[in-house]
Amino acid sequence: MTLKPVVNDPQGLAVTQGLHALGYAEVMESRVGKQVQLRLSAADRGQAEARVDEMCQRLLCNGVIEDYRFRLDEEDG
Amino acid sequence: MTLKPVVNDPQGLAVTQGLHALGYAEVMESRVGKQVQLRLSAADRGQAEARVDEMCQRLLCNGVIEDYRFRLDEEDG
Repeated sequence: MTLKPVVNDPQGLAVTQGLHALGYAEVMESRVGKQVQLRLSAADRGQAEARVDEMCQRLLCNGVIEDYRFRLDEEDG
Repeated sequence: MTLKPVVNDPQGLAVTQGLHALGYAEVMESRVGKQVQLRLSAADRGQAEARVDEMCQRLLCNGVIEDYRFRLDEEDG
């Protein structure tokens, strides 16, 4: 999940300032987002995709201020 | 940045419980991490890689409890 580009990101600003204070003047912008790793079972890839997309919309992501994307990796078993 | 596997993740537990409460019983585990997007200039890819790795170790990542990995994407200009 990342904040939408139009949304202020004070945490990102703090990161940029912190990096500048440490001498990393080449940093122009930082944006701080969240990452959620889920382990789940599903009949197939299509089902997993549909369910995860629903979870993002219903709980994980605040659609007013955040964008989301996800990637599925398969596990054996 | 993700919490090391041995570190407790109460936020991840809350996500798992929240998803179960919404009926997503197929979720076995959730881990919540951070994502930082940096925009920076560098002479070349190797330099960018070295600098970002240093930033992760010095400021962005808490090496005691977190692991990190990063990916570089090039912008024009």
